[in-house]
Amino acid sequence: MKYSGLVGRLLEGAGAEIGDVIEVRSGKETHSGILMPHHEFSHPSVITLKLANGYNVGIRVVERTKVRLVSRKEAKSRPKQALPRDPSKKDVAVISTGGTIASYVDYRTGAVHPAISAEELVFSVPELMDLCNVRAKVLYSILSENMKVSHWQGLARSVAHELNSGAVGVIIPHGTDTLGFTSAALAFMLRNLTGPVVCVGAQRSSDRPSSDAIANLLAATRLCVEGDLGEVVVLMHGETSDSFMLAHRGTKVRKMHSSRRDAFKSINSEPVARVEGSDIKFLNEHTRRAKGPVELKDKIDGRASMLHFYPGFEAEHFDLIAKKVKGIVVAGTGLGHVSEDIVRSIGKAVKDGVHVYITTQCLYGTVNLNVYSTGRDMIAAGAVPLGDMLPETAYVKLMWAMGQSDDPSEVRKLMLTNIAGELAPRRPV
Amino acid sequence: MKYSGLVGRLLEGAGAEIGDVIEVRSGKETHSGILMPHHEFSHPSVITLKLANGYNVGIRVVERTKVRLVSRKEAKSRPKQALPRDPSKKDVAVISTGGTIASYVDYRTGAVHPAISAEELVFSVPELMDLCNVRAKVLYSILSENMKVSHWQGLARSVAHELNSGAVGVIIPHGTDTLGFTSAALAFMLRNLTGPVVCVGAQRSSDRPSSDAIANLLAATRLCVEGDLGEVVVLMHGETSDSFMLAHRGTKVRKMHSSRRDAFKSINSEPVARVEGSDIKFLNEHTRRAKGPVELKDKIDGRASMLHFYPGFEAEHFDLIAKKVKGIVVAGTGLGHVSEDIVRSIGKAVKDGVHVYITTQCLYGTVNLNVYSTGRDMIAAGAVPLGDMLPETAYVKLMWAMGQSDDPSEVRKLMLTNIAGELAPRRPV
Repeated sequence: MKYSGLVGRLLEGAGAEIGDVIEVRSGKETHSGILMPHHEFSHPSVITLKLANGYNVGIRVVERTKVRLVSRKEAKSRPKQALPRDPSKKDVAVISTGGTIASYVDYRTGAVHPAISAEELVFSVPELMDLCNVRAKVLYSILSENMKVSHWQGLARSVAHELNSGAVGVIIPHGTDTLGFTSAALAFMLRNLTGPVVCVGAQRSSDRPSSDAIANLLAATRLCVEGDLGEVVVLMHGETSDSFMLAHRGTKVRKMHSSRRDAFKSINSEPVARVEGSDIKFLNEHTRRAKGPVELKDKIDGRASMLHFYPGFEAEHFDLIAKKVKGIVVAGTGLGHVSEDIVRSIGKAVKDGVHVYITTQCLYGTVNLNVYSTGRDMIAAGAVPLGDMLPETAYVKLMWAMGQSDDPSEVRKLMLTNIAGELAPRRPV
Repeated sequence: MKYSGLVGRLLEGAGAEIGDVIEVRSGKETHSGILMPHHEFSHPSVITLKLANGYNVGIRVVERTKVRLVSRKEAKSRPKQALPRDPSKKDVAVISTGGTIASYVDYRTGAVHPAISAEELVFSVPELMDLCNVRAKVLYSILSENMKVSHWQGLARSVAHELNSGAVGVIIPHGTDTLGFTSAALAFMLRNLTGPVVCVGAQRSSDRPSSDAIANLLAATRLCVEGDLGEVVVLMHGETSDSFMLAHRGTKVRKMHSSRRDAFKSINSEPVARVEGSDIKFLNEHTRRAKGPVELKDKIDGRASMLHFYPGFEAEHFDLIAKKVKGIVVAGTGLGHVSEDIVRSIGKAVKDGVHVYITTQCLYGTVNLNVYSTGRDMIAAGAVPLGDMLPETAYVKLMWAMGQSDDPSEVRKLMLTNIAGELAPRRPV
């Protein structure tokens, strides 16, 4: 935001703009630093400066405060460089979609810019180029909360193209907010993967000294070049320090913390692999690289909804949504339960031809609708339990399955078949 | 379900009913066991028997199969006993609501019966009576997925009554599915607690040898009698064995596994206390017993909804729900984000007078709407971030806050004030 009033006049008098270095003298105190934008929560007569030590300071100005322009902000210049190519090295594709990992903080203004180019991203981790030739492209430049089904499809097509034209693996820098949804979608849409498809994010933007982007990108590259893996994984920090990274199966992973670097956890499953320096250790069964070509099954029917049940959930609300969609994934309580009135709503929806599948909002553990009367009533109403499948993965899979077939029994068969590690074989209760 | 067709005729001919011990002879094979109800998934000509080893077996019958009645099921007799009273001991109230902890498996039929009396529950753990006089009553006998706002209110009134008439603590046996919602509701409705209010559940019914009910009830009783605590807590197993129990703050607890005994976890907080044998160890800051009397603030306005954001969430669905309610708690992605179109829907809802509060579906960590443009747009649209508050707790609190005041600014003030440990003081980002 811009400054107004007295502050605006003082800055205008000094010819100072946001990003310039200025000096503010008020009585005996003098501060100099980069002029930051006015913050909406700040008092209108406060100037915010970023000091040389990186901290911001707010200075209350009065009529006799003196403001002096020390130096103009530099014109932004980010040279466009071509990536080098070494014929003795393998090709890895980097398909950037945006998010924190592909953003940088402008230290002059403190703003986060999402539009780093794929080349810039690669140049920020030059070690990548020691391991492989990087084919870098920016497919999208969006915050991951704005990802839609169509973005998943474009991404799947791009991944298939890269693998089918010689890349040994694909790295997808992506915002972390919905990374687990995208990885699940890719896992269902892509078959016969000839190499790893590594979705990678960062919790701190890639130009910050504390960024986790570099370690994640480096481990992802190593997995692409050296790992015998034909699956979609999410690779992020295994703990808060840079010591080791974990590759989580794309259908079994969830962001479980709003800010920690090790926010991503495998749920109801061990991670696929651990990458520590140059060492790749597989921790779980996994699918090896296929001969190819990579097959694309990118039809998705987006007319689905995911509903979390809770006490006080109005059956009327359930009915309203059920009328708008073709499929519903319910995240029930405990073993997958909903209240009696919602059981009735499920019955009505199923009669109207809506697919209703059941998962648990506990996240950990499996659903089981055979233990209590509620569960048995849900089955009688036509709800289908999905074992240990994550609600988010089930929602993505349902849209994908509805895209594959219009036949409800075929959709059901797909939902109950393990396709990409999303569903564990039934365990005895 | 009853048997029909050939099986029905054979059973009728033998005079056998569900629960009787029968012998089934088919060719050279003879099986005997308890006649179980017909299962809807079984073939109509299969008889299901529970064998002496506890396993069920299905026997396909043909015309020449012989069925013989071996012995009648015993008439169920559960003597009603009065609980003893020792004037030298303190009073603890047990207010039963139902759920697995207050149910028993009928081993003859395999069915789970929810309607154990409070006395029966106490007699199943006679050690309780060594520690205190138990005032037992059954307030409800329902599965916790059927709990409504009105049940929370009835429970709060009953707790206040027990504490204000001399009980040193209250134990609430409750189904585990929505235990965290009830504990949060009680925490907001009850003030100046003169003793612990311990919500306690079980993942295995209380008459099973593997039940966790006994250990949980015993630890809850100890906390009521000996713990200097004036808070609502959820007490469950700390690990899968009976070694120690954890008392979690009622507003900071969530069922994180569909079936494990240690399913309940404190989120963004340490548990309040650990109970191991007779040892109570406090692990966190806590409120001590108040002088009383217990104050009841039991007004709740149920016109709220909790919506989990995900890619593909239709703005139209958000708008539909927003028109039906007075308040919405959004569980956003990451730091609390939603997509651009949902930001617009939030703006519209707020303009129409709907309270919109933001939490994170990551569950762990705090929301922060000041880091990315999406968050700042959400704030501009009128959404209010709720720090590290659990989505479920925020939903319960919003209904409670709307019950306390019709003034939106008063509701907002209540939401942003820590009332029962639900909201940590703001931490630097």
